[in-house]
Amino acid sequence: MFDTASIAHEVDKATWKKEEPKLRQSLLAAQFTVLQKKEFPVLVLIGGVEGAGKGETVNLLHEWMDPRHIITHAFDAPTEDEVARPAMWRFWQRLPPKGRLGIFFGAWHSQPIVDRALKHLSRAELDQRVSEVNRFEKMLSDEGVLLVKFWFHLTKKQQRKRLEALASDKHTRWRVGENEWELFKKYDRLSDASEHFVRSTSTGWAPWYVVNGADGRYRSLTVGKTLLAAIEDRLESGASSTSSTNAPPLLPPIDGRNVIRALDLKQKLSDERYDKELEKWQGRLNLLSRDEKFRRLSVVCVFEGNDAAGKGGAIRRITQAIDARYIRPIPIAAPTEEERAQPYLWRFWRHLPRHGRVAIFDRSWYGRVLVERVEKYCSEAAWMRAYQEINDFEDELLNGGSVLAKFWLAISKEEQFRRFKDRERTPFKRFKITDEDWRNRKKWEAYERAVCDMIDRTSTEEAPWTLVEANDKNFARVKVLKTLCKTIEDRFDAL
Amino acid sequence: MFDTASIAHEVDKATWKKEEPKLRQSLLAAQFTVLQKKEFPVLVLIGGVEGAGKGETVNLLHEWMDPRHIITHAFDAPTEDEVARPAMWRFWQRLPPKGRLGIFFGAWHSQPIVDRALKHLSRAELDQRVSEVNRFEKMLSDEGVLLVKFWFHLTKKQQRKRLEALASDKHTRWRVGENEWELFKKYDRLSDASEHFVRSTSTGWAPWYVVNGADGRYRSLTVGKTLLAAIEDRLESGASSTSSTNAPPLLPPIDGRNVIRALDLKQKLSDERYDKELEKWQGRLNLLSRDEKFRRLSVVCVFEGNDAAGKGGAIRRITQAIDARYIRPIPIAAPTEEERAQPYLWRFWRHLPRHGRVAIFDRSWYGRVLVERVEKYCSEAAWMRAYQEINDFEDELLNGGSVLAKFWLAISKEEQFRRFKDRERTPFKRFKITDEDWRNRKKWEAYERAVCDMIDRTSTEEAPWTLVEANDKNFARVKVLKTLCKTIEDRFDAL
Repeated sequence: MFDTASIAHEVDKATWKKEEPKLRQSLLAAQFTVLQKKEFPVLVLIGGVEGAGKGETVNLLHEWMDPRHIITHAFDAPTEDEVARPAMWRFWQRLPPKGRLGIFFGAWHSQPIVDRALKHLSRAELDQRVSEVNRFEKMLSDEGVLLVKFWFHLTKKQQRKRLEALASDKHTRWRVGENEWELFKKYDRLSDASEHFVRSTSTGWAPWYVVNGADGRYRSLTVGKTLLAAIEDRLESGASSTSSTNAPPLLPPIDGRNVIRALDLKQKLSDERYDKELEKWQGRLNLLSRDEKFRRLSVVCVFEGNDAAGKGGAIRRITQAIDARYIRPIPIAAPTEEERAQPYLWRFWRHLPRHGRVAIFDRSWYGRVLVERVEKYCSEAAWMRAYQEINDFEDELLNGGSVLAKFWLAISKEEQFRRFKDRERTPFKRFKITDEDWRNRKKWEAYERAVCDMIDRTSTEEAPWTLVEANDKNFARVKVLKTLCKTIEDRFDAL
Repeated sequence: MFDTASIAHEVDKATWKKEEPKLRQSLLAAQFTVLQKKEFPVLVLIGGVEGAGKGETVNLLHEWMDPRHIITHAFDAPTEDEVARPAMWRFWQRLPPKGRLGIFFGAWHSQPIVDRALKHLSRAELDQRVSEVNRFEKMLSDEGVLLVKFWFHLTKKQQRKRLEALASDKHTRWRVGENEWELFKKYDRLSDASEHFVRSTSTGWAPWYVVNGADGRYRSLTVGKTLLAAIEDRLESGASSTSSTNAPPLLPPIDGRNVIRALDLKQKLSDERYDKELEKWQGRLNLLSRDEKFRRLSVVCVFEGNDAAGKGGAIRRITQAIDARYIRPIPIAAPTEEERAQPYLWRFWRHLPRHGRVAIFDRSWYGRVLVERVEKYCSEAAWMRAYQEINDFEDELLNGGSVLAKFWLAISKEEQFRRFKDRERTPFKRFKITDEDWRNRKKWEAYERAVCDMIDRTSTEEAPWTLVEANDKNFARVKVLKTLCKTIEDRFDAL
């Protein structure tokens, strides 16, 4: 979930100067339309790590819009009055009415995360909170509240830098006390708890927008534009539109940087090194597959990637290493008639391996948020809810004793062109290239955006995506084998 | 939740002979339409207590419809194949495809209930299961599966009778072994766990239909007609209709009996007895309100009832007993403009009392599933989801230290007529009777149905409805006071 938000983003001054006045004007206009129409309230939730610029951003929103019509509230320890009433009472007291914009800091999501990080809550109790929060937000959403949730993220390194900077400036020194450094020490635990909570409360009707807070200009423009898009989208679709079909839209990063573009595709492995590494990791995988512990687990690999990224080749390097009786590659094409008569996850469930077996999905359930989204084979509501459905599905896999390894094989647009041309020229490869491949290529940007959203919403601490730089086949194949071995070994250790 | 299903129901032979052939024909026709259209699958979930006729009913469905197109599956202990895969795998394997009817016995709801009753699961863990089940069923429903869930209920007495009957017949003796009697001993624990689970998984998109299983003819006609109505409703609204707006309809009990009609409205209290009882219970309530424990709790009373049922009088008997500084009656009328600009529960949250205080709601949040439903002030989807929202809300009240007492004051239609006429005749009462009262009266049956559904879906073990026979005001007032005292005392004991 936080992978995407860990990318370094930056917006330069010139862009800021160009974008800011436009955004400001549009936000103010949107605010007044909402106010005049009085059809729905807008509730912005702000969460995230210390020092990620939450306060600064909200101050800016106040500057940009008319602060008289914004109700901002920071929830700290409950007052005497609040303690004497049900826990949610204090939030209800502050809800913005139709037409107004409310901004809540540290609302109902703060306490569960802190309590979990400090081990006051078991995982089951945390999930109980998650479910309460989801039902509450669903109700708000069904009642017409436009919920826009921002999570401000910093990597550990970024947070340290930021706290140090604040501490060394006499104007901001007061903001960094013992408490802040204590929390920093708990970064990893807080981050784990946050990741789980943010992911589980990122629903189709009220997803979180995770924003990297290190660069002020990037952060502010991102929040401003996302908020604007959410409001405009709702104004357009009308007040009566119900929540589930109408989640705020996802925007691509405003500075054009994303996890895919951040990859270093120049990485290579010489043929000589490749032969050695291949032998090493295939040998290791083979040993693992004959380990007694392997009988108690199943292995599920997911391969997704650009067309011609070399999925087949990478898969073959795995199958070569394991006894053919125990491994099964499962190519996923268009669903059969029988499969279309079932919920979309059905065709993957039917192929799940039993313990002691390996299944390799060559394309997978992620088709729903990739090709089906881009080609509009399913409705926006369907792919928006799919992120959570997929996370639930993968949780079931993990709880059911599966090791899950998910690979995105990435090549550059130029490399793809080269490979397509090569396929057309080589007689025995010609079957691998069709008009559809060329058509897909034209939608490169749309696919890239879908891939980033997918990674953002489905790369979890238990089932992370591995992004594989695949311009060099040697490098890609070894990275895949190595990652797979390590994933299995980690799970063995946890048994 | 099980109150309504504890009413004795009976369908006589003559009615059965008249109804059964029609129902049979319609079900078969509906089954074939579903089969031909192939737009959605129908999945019937069967749960409930032993001996409540689950098997018999499903056998009958097989007789009534074409069994070649029904996929029935009873889930027992998982097989070796199933154990080696994620827990949900065995259910996915059996899902009916579009056009087919599937019947699942003891699917994903059985294990959590048993585990909770045997204390293998904590309450938090049970709620984790609940949330998984709800997300799973939401997904099925979003994917177009028509889910119809039946819970077969027997009271403890009915279950004993039924098991004894089975055991004494040589043809059915084999069905009642040690295991069945062991489970019977755990009736209360199982019932508590079931009640919680059934209520929490009774969602707007897939509610449970709780059916009393004691009378075979009643049970079968109820299940058959509910299933038929669900299928016909979906056929009418089309395959593309999404779950949240399209829960299967609620039918009134086919034999016309319900919790309201089952009340003995002839109950009376002489004026003499009344004076004594009133003094006793008002004194007790006053003592309770001055107890030290009262500072740690708040008391929330809900009064609903037929027009002219005497809510005001009953409320005054409570306020008389408590220091006016600590008690506040809250009459709920049409929402103000400010209140209409907020989610519908907002206007109740704002009046919640702090610890040490009492709030008496004269009409309440139940308006949504009563007047708003009957008068169509809100959409069907809105009042269908309101049951769960209200249950969530009341859970928050209870967890936040509120004592909750909910009263439905019931009078007969004749008694209401008498009171209306009396009001019209008596000058100082004339303000209490309006044209609207007469209009509402014309919808007596619709209101009665709404009341029964409300009690069915919101009378929980922690916050039960108290039905008050109110034809006699003396009797009603004393019953209210007595119930309130006992509710507070129970909560004191648990502190």
